[in-house]
Amino acid sequence: MEMKLPGQEEFEASSAPRNIPSGELDSNPGPGTGPSPDGPSDTESKELGVRKDPLLFIQLNELLGWPQALEWRETGRWVLFEEKLEVAAGRWSAPHVPTLALPSLQKLRSLLAEGLVLLDCPAQSLLELVEQVTRVESLSPELRGQLQALLLQRPQHYNQTTGTRPCWGSTHPRKASDKEEASLREQYQNPLRQKLPPGAEAGTVLAGELGFLAQPLGAFVRLRDPVVLGSLTEVSLPSRFFCLLLGPPMLGKGYHEMGRAAAVLLSDPQFQWSVRRASNLHDLLAALDAFLEEVTVLPPGRWDPTARIPPPKCLPSQHKRLPSQQREIRGPSGPRLTSAEDRHRHGLHAPSQELQRTGRLFGGLIQDVRRKAPWYPSDFLDALHLQCFSAVLYIYLATVTNAITFGGLLGDATDGAQGVLESFLGTAVAGAAFCLMAGQPLTILSSTGPVLVFERLLFSFSRDYSLDYLPFRLWVGIWVATFCLVLVATEASVLVRYFTRFTEEGFCALISLIFIYDAVGKMLNLTHTYPIQKPGSSTYGCLCQYPGPGGNDSQWIRTRPKDRDDIVSMDLGLINASLLPPPECTQQGGQPRGPGCHTVPDIAFFSLLLFLTSFFFAMALKCVKTSRFFPSVVRKGLSDFSSVLAILLGCGLDAFLGLATPKLMVPREFKPTLPGRGWLVSPFGTNPWWWSVAAALPALLLSILIFMDQQITAVILNRVEYRLQKGAGFHLDLFCVAVLMLLTSVLGLPWYVSATVISLAHMDSLRRESRACAPGELPNFLGIREQRLTGLVVFILTGASIFLAPVLKFIPMPVLYGIFLYMGVAALSSIQFTKRVKLLLMPAKHQPDLLLLRHVPLTRVHLFTAIQLVCLGLLWIIKSTPAAIIFPLMLLGLVGVRKALERVFSPQELLWLDELMPEEERSIPEKGLEPEHSFSGSDSEDSELMYQPKAPEINISVN
Amino acid sequence: MEMKLPGQEEFEASSAPRNIPSGELDSNPGPGTGPSPDGPSDTESKELGVRKDPLLFIQLNELLGWPQALEWRETGRWVLFEEKLEVAAGRWSAPHVPTLALPSLQKLRSLLAEGLVLLDCPAQSLLELVEQVTRVESLSPELRGQLQALLLQRPQHYNQTTGTRPCWGSTHPRKASDKEEASLREQYQNPLRQKLPPGAEAGTVLAGELGFLAQPLGAFVRLRDPVVLGSLTEVSLPSRFFCLLLGPPMLGKGYHEMGRAAAVLLSDPQFQWSVRRASNLHDLLAALDAFLEEVTVLPPGRWDPTARIPPPKCLPSQHKRLPSQQREIRGPSGPRLTSAEDRHRHGLHAPSQELQRTGRLFGGLIQDVRRKAPWYPSDFLDALHLQCFSAVLYIYLATVTNAITFGGLLGDATDGAQGVLESFLGTAVAGAAFCLMAGQPLTILSSTGPVLVFERLLFSFSRDYSLDYLPFRLWVGIWVATFCLVLVATEASVLVRYFTRFTEEGFCALISLIFIYDAVGKMLNLTHTYPIQKPGSSTYGCLCQYPGPGGNDSQWIRTRPKDRDDIVSMDLGLINASLLPPPECTQQGGQPRGPGCHTVPDIAFFSLLLFLTSFFFAMALKCVKTSRFFPSVVRKGLSDFSSVLAILLGCGLDAFLGLATPKLMVPREFKPTLPGRGWLVSPFGTNPWWWSVAAALPALLLSILIFMDQQITAVILNRVEYRLQKGAGFHLDLFCVAVLMLLTSVLGLPWYVSATVISLAHMDSLRRESRACAPGELPNFLGIREQRLTGLVVFILTGASIFLAPVLKFIPMPVLYGIFLYMGVAALSSIQFTKRVKLLLMPAKHQPDLLLLRHVPLTRVHLFTAIQLVCLGLLWIIKSTPAAIIFPLMLLGLVGVRKALERVFSPQELLWLDELMPEEERSIPEKGLEPEHSFSGSDSEDSELMYQPKAPEINISVN
Repeated sequence: MEMKLPGQEEFEASSAPRNIPSGELDSNPGPGTGPSPDGPSDTESKELGVRKDPLLFIQLNELLGWPQALEWRETGRWVLFEEKLEVAAGRWSAPHVPTLALPSLQKLRSLLAEGLVLLDCPAQSLLELVEQVTRVESLSPELRGQLQALLLQRPQHYNQTTGTRPCWGSTHPRKASDKEEASLREQYQNPLRQKLPPGAEAGTVLAGELGFLAQPLGAFVRLRDPVVLGSLTEVSLPSRFFCLLLGPPMLGKGYHEMGRAAAVLLSDPQFQWSVRRASNLHDLLAALDAFLEEVTVLPPGRWDPTARIPPPKCLPSQHKRLPSQQREIRGPSGPRLTSAEDRHRHGLHAPSQELQRTGRLFGGLIQDVRRKAPWYPSDFLDALHLQCFSAVLYIYLATVTNAITFGGLLGDATDGAQGVLESFLGTAVAGAAFCLMAGQPLTILSSTGPVLVFERLLFSFSRDYSLDYLPFRLWVGIWVATFCLVLVATEASVLVRYFTRFTEEGFCALISLIFIYDAVGKMLNLTHTYPIQKPGSSTYGCLCQYPGPGGNDSQWIRTRPKDRDDIVSMDLGLINASLLPPPECTQQGGQPRGPGCHTVPDIAFFSLLLFLTSFFFAMALKCVKTSRFFPSVVRKGLSDFSSVLAILLGCGLDAFLGLATPKLMVPREFKPTLPGRGWLVSPFGTNPWWWSVAAALPALLLSILIFMDQQITAVILNRVEYRLQKGAGFHLDLFCVAVLMLLTSVLGLPWYVSATVISLAHMDSLRRESRACAPGELPNFLGIREQRLTGLVVFILTGASIFLAPVLKFIPMPVLYGIFLYMGVAALSSIQFTKRVKLLLMPAKHQPDLLLLRHVPLTRVHLFTAIQLVCLGLLWIIKSTPAAIIFPLMLLGLVGVRKALERVFSPQELLWLDELMPEEERSIPEKGLEPEHSFSGSDSEDSELMYQPKAPEINISVN
Repeated sequence: MEMKLPGQEEFEASSAPRNIPSGELDSNPGPGTGPSPDGPSDTESKELGVRKDPLLFIQLNELLGWPQALEWRETGRWVLFEEKLEVAAGRWSAPHVPTLALPSLQKLRSLLAEGLVLLDCPAQSLLELVEQVTRVESLSPELRGQLQALLLQRPQHYNQTTGTRPCWGSTHPRKASDKEEASLREQYQNPLRQKLPPGAEAGTVLAGELGFLAQPLGAFVRLRDPVVLGSLTEVSLPSRFFCLLLGPPMLGKGYHEMGRAAAVLLSDPQFQWSVRRASNLHDLLAALDAFLEEVTVLPPGRWDPTARIPPPKCLPSQHKRLPSQQREIRGPSGPRLTSAEDRHRHGLHAPSQELQRTGRLFGGLIQDVRRKAPWYPSDFLDALHLQCFSAVLYIYLATVTNAITFGGLLGDATDGAQGVLESFLGTAVAGAAFCLMAGQPLTILSSTGPVLVFERLLFSFSRDYSLDYLPFRLWVGIWVATFCLVLVATEASVLVRYFTRFTEEGFCALISLIFIYDAVGKMLNLTHTYPIQKPGSSTYGCLCQYPGPGGNDSQWIRTRPKDRDDIVSMDLGLINASLLPPPECTQQGGQPRGPGCHTVPDIAFFSLLLFLTSFFFAMALKCVKTSRFFPSVVRKGLSDFSSVLAILLGCGLDAFLGLATPKLMVPREFKPTLPGRGWLVSPFGTNPWWWSVAAALPALLLSILIFMDQQITAVILNRVEYRLQKGAGFHLDLFCVAVLMLLTSVLGLPWYVSATVISLAHMDSLRRESRACAPGELPNFLGIREQRLTGLVVFILTGASIFLAPVLKFIPMPVLYGIFLYMGVAALSSIQFTKRVKLLLMPAKHQPDLLLLRHVPLTRVHLFTAIQLVCLGLLWIIKSTPAAIIFPLMLLGLVGVRKALERVFSPQELLWLDELMPEEERSIPEKGLEPEHSFSGSDSEDSELMYQPKAPEINISVN
């Protein structure tokens, strides 16, 4: 008997650089963590090393119609989960977790114990098999013949392809050969056949009551060589197992349930493993007993056995269930696995080699370059896949949306010193350069909220001191680039291990709130520009005055009565005047006069409508992804392009009504937005020289901000659960950012760092997944298509979009504000912090069963949330005061606050509420991570769930 | 041994008139069908007759801390479901279905089989009990002493009241008596104590490993008289069962799991029943084996045993699990039950005595009066309950909302012949009269959509023929009353059994669509009244002209240039003019002049905003009910008053901005809305006399409509699942409606019939429910507080609200339109038809696992839906043509279409898609309801689910 030891594959797999077998433990369906049941995917099983046995398709054929019209009918099938034929509805049920009755398993056991067990049966056809199976003493030759004829009878399968109900009981006198042919055709056309992986085998259970039998007849056969047994199975697959359960009529649905029990047993991975290696009846029964040892039992009074349980998102690890010989083999061979598991257990960023200090100047950078260089050719070759095409389209649209919105906001923030054109150009140049050079080319560079906020602060600062903005900004950029290079040289990026979820969430929440606040604020500002006309308001009335005889300015002023309200009521001393609307009036050579001439009615409310429409439409489209409607392709498309579609809807509405809403300002030609400047920013302008030195101070703050913004994103993108193969490049990335900082400052373009949301969306659109091989199985996440080409093409297209100006000018600003609100709300709602804030509003009994709440007292959870809220409040206050420009320092302060929390919370609590910092991690072995585990009756029940890696928390907008 | 036979209670219960024990089969959480697990409620168990044993609270105390600091700690508790102490989090887990490992049950069995079993132990205190339990040969006297001391040690309970973590391991040297006192105080303050019903008993399982024992020690004790065993249990309850499971240390969590197994066993109703009656060890083990026979088994590879299953909404019936002696007793004594079950099985309206033809003129009416008369005093006495107060408030607000909205629409529809005042007055008079006289006083009379539609059609008809509307309407009313009396006399109401769900849904869908269409249409109409000012539109400019010297009309006209657009540009030849807004201009004695004087800007968009706001706000508030936030009282309040709150929000917004939106027109004094008419409508007016005869034709149509509208509501309200005790009065109700028809026609008030939505809301606010006695248990629905007082008070208050006019005039019309849209959408989304339409859009694999889809082929389901869609389309077309007035006839046609469907669909399919008509019902025994049941392996699995009564389908708006 050949035994491939499962430990071996694992060793092979562990030669890949970051190939960490974490999939089995995943459960949160975050973008990177597809649930990975012990699926039959090749890659998965290779990685996990648990099983290399072929996948088994199991079918239950029941003998029905006794005594008049005996025939076999398929009534159920199993791969991972059970599908039952709904006879009346003529469809397969949804895949569900099979439930059994205990007696049926026990009856099955005794029937097998007394029955015929043929292991490695050499039969080569159904006929041979039937002959072997019916060679039982208890049968008379006559009965044996009848039984053989019955077993050779073709079973009825539900024809899924045509969707028709099976023509059971049909009495058409068709030729047998015709039928056989049709049946074989059906076997081949079966859609399940395409789903099952190559090499899959079949197992058939035949069960039913047969009146002429005096005593039950049980047989279990394992074929030596799998052979296709005619049309026995619904799908044309070679059969490996064959189980016969027949007997005299008994009460209830005995044989049906016994047959189901046999099928469920065969579908159990552990039983399969054992029974493939069983050498006698004893082994078979031992495998059955081992199954029974591990079943979960639900009490009858509290569970309706007819309820169907949908396939769980997270299946139990099969590691635990390995027989002892397997476990022994695994034990010594898997030191790497143990350490990886350990890492998961603590939920940490991998303290991998990328984040280990070399101690040499630029040592990290050099290592990054060395690590990434060998992958460079494959970074282009790996992109040759159709999926990359759709990724490019998706990310291009998202990037352009971002460039437009940030460009608009930047124009607002800097009073036109920069604008949409700079935004497009800068995005294209910086993004493409980064994609070519960076350590993590999946990163998408973009304007980000924090940098925008800082730019606004910098602009108002330079306005307060009457500085020439762009030259001042140039010096800030030069200093930032210098500081960043120092950070690269000193390998400061290894400090990212101190950025725990607490810091990430504080950062993300602040930025989201700024987005929301700005979007709403700008929307409300529009009502000042376009005031609402209330009855009796002073903005009523407008005349068109012509410069005719007797009509001039002096006369206007002279006839204004002094004793009455000077705006509302002006007696007209004019002859040549008309009620022409102001634009036409000006055209006709007249002058619009009166308080109502500068108001445009209806714009404020219409803008509000556009704002709300685009916001809610984008939100709704995002939710389509998880709805039941439409095929999954349509749903994914709608939710992926939610913001683009929302913008299009807003533009359409606006164009339909044709109101003069404020539109996006785009330049008509390719030149800087600020009139009168060239592409190169002059180094001093009108500023005194010493400002170039003083710029170092704001530059220090900006450096901190850039470092944090860049590295928090980098940490998130390089999380273990994305299973990146080519490694990260924290130092190299920062180096690229520094260089680009210099370039964009010189050209007067916006500054760029990695954008979390859009980068995650990029990775998500490039995820590789195993095909679902079995009904009810969720696809396995295999990794990301890591390459540089998609990003590069996206940015080239973005650059080419500069010529989109004639189209972009139709986008109303309220629509963009709505999209910004959407981005803020989506970002805010995705972080765990928000979930904990919601907990504050929930009565304890309605709270969801979060693992967090199982392990940390509610008061402690609330205390942690409250501290975060206070931090956020402080940050907000600082941002609103004149000291706003130091807010990057305060963000850094979050790391300090988190450090101080060690004195308030125990490491166990922090493990659940946050992550651990490097020192805490080290402290745990001494302190004992789970003191409660010393009591046997406590929490070890959810030990398995506990070790699942945390899903990425920040997961915003388009994704 | 005393055995109370469960069949006896049932006989007692069946003397109540409509006491149908259907609760156990309910599963849809419709308003009337609270899920009824085999809960411990007294009423329930009396009705069901299954069990009168007291409720059992089971607690697991574990021995932890071996060897240094042995102590007992409560780690789990059970009433219906399991609650586990989350040690680290210091809270009880959410109640969940307990899951066990099979080996632990088997180990428990062998430990009990070898251990000590004391049934009817006479111990009166913990000390006595401990002495009895430790009287085992295997123990040396020294060990016995140690064990006794250990068993008498006070266990640690988690203190739920104070919410603190249990002070386990605390070493404060407090006095034992202090501790004991504190412990007893905690026992009494335990919130669970108030939840558990009086008479509840406790069972305690003590489990753990004890190093000094050489072999396992198992003991099971049933106390003869339940006694409080000190602070053994968390709650101060008399203990009935005591189970001890101790032994030498073994691998894993053996004793913990065994203890859980014992606790779960004890919490099983069937095991409890058996073990309370067990007389020896054999009986105990037999009960355990019976439990094992019925457990549900989940395979280990497909189910994570650590996952917690939330309590199911529907528990399996315990009837099936009754031991044979119980079943035998039930069999003969329950013929009534069998017929009731049968009725459920067929999902029919109860063909009860109320709907049986007497064959005499007015026979049904007389019977109704006879049936209801004895209940009349109790109809007032039963209202003396606090719940009725909140019901009055809720229904009053809903009624007033309805009166306002329908009044506004009626004013629109009849061009002011009727209005809000009539609506209030009519609602109050008709409603109060109906509540006093009707057969089903829970019904709330109201204007309804169908009648409103008909009234509109009647008005346009009479306008087309230049008729005096109110006199013509009077004659229609007289004829309708006559026809209805004929229907009462001929007992036509028994025909309601032909109104199946098909008819109800067609009716409801049409009305909902009309609501939606009207609401949106009226909203869009506002944009014509208040046009949007586009750039270049012709509605710009307005002057105020004073009749001063040189300024008069002729001059205005004379100076208008002829060669140019005559509206946009008018040269002014005026001296005395100003830009005063039109109202002020008129006040000053001037005249507003110009095309822009009649436009009010911003109103259209603001109205749209109000419309959308009130619609979405009402929808959102309705969803609050099922959210996790806020205590349930707050949630219920918010969702119950969703439309009121939405109206208030809309009014607040409107008042805040102070724009001149169109408001609800209310009369300033108490007189008919139509100027110049008295309260009594003159019988002829200006109409020719023969119109009073011709009115019979529209009256015939209206009679059909009234009959259908009234009786469909009545059928829904009197459904079996509401468990009404006092019976229905279909004939009497129709009689009342006829009389009121006459009265309202004479007074020129709107016509009234039963309103489904608001009546259901009324019943819902009066539902009696058992208190939830156990964590995780859902309250049982016991019935409705049937009385006449709440309705009466509601209508008296409504009448008094006529004087609310000064407040009502602030309600903007767009807000009311928004509420109407909400009512239409809510009604449409509640019917099964909508669910089936949604199925059309879902790929088969994403469809929910509806029972319907398990039993009817998808193509047949879609065909049925398509037929309904076509019917609806035809009705809509008819409603939109000049033949609209015959649409009641077409509604009746739905019954015919449904009858014709018998030729297309089999009775089984109709049973699932609809209900059966009387004839079909009769045909079923011959045809065989479920032919597929002849095949053993088919659908009998969900037989239990199949017999659940259908939940009411129409369940609209406020409810």
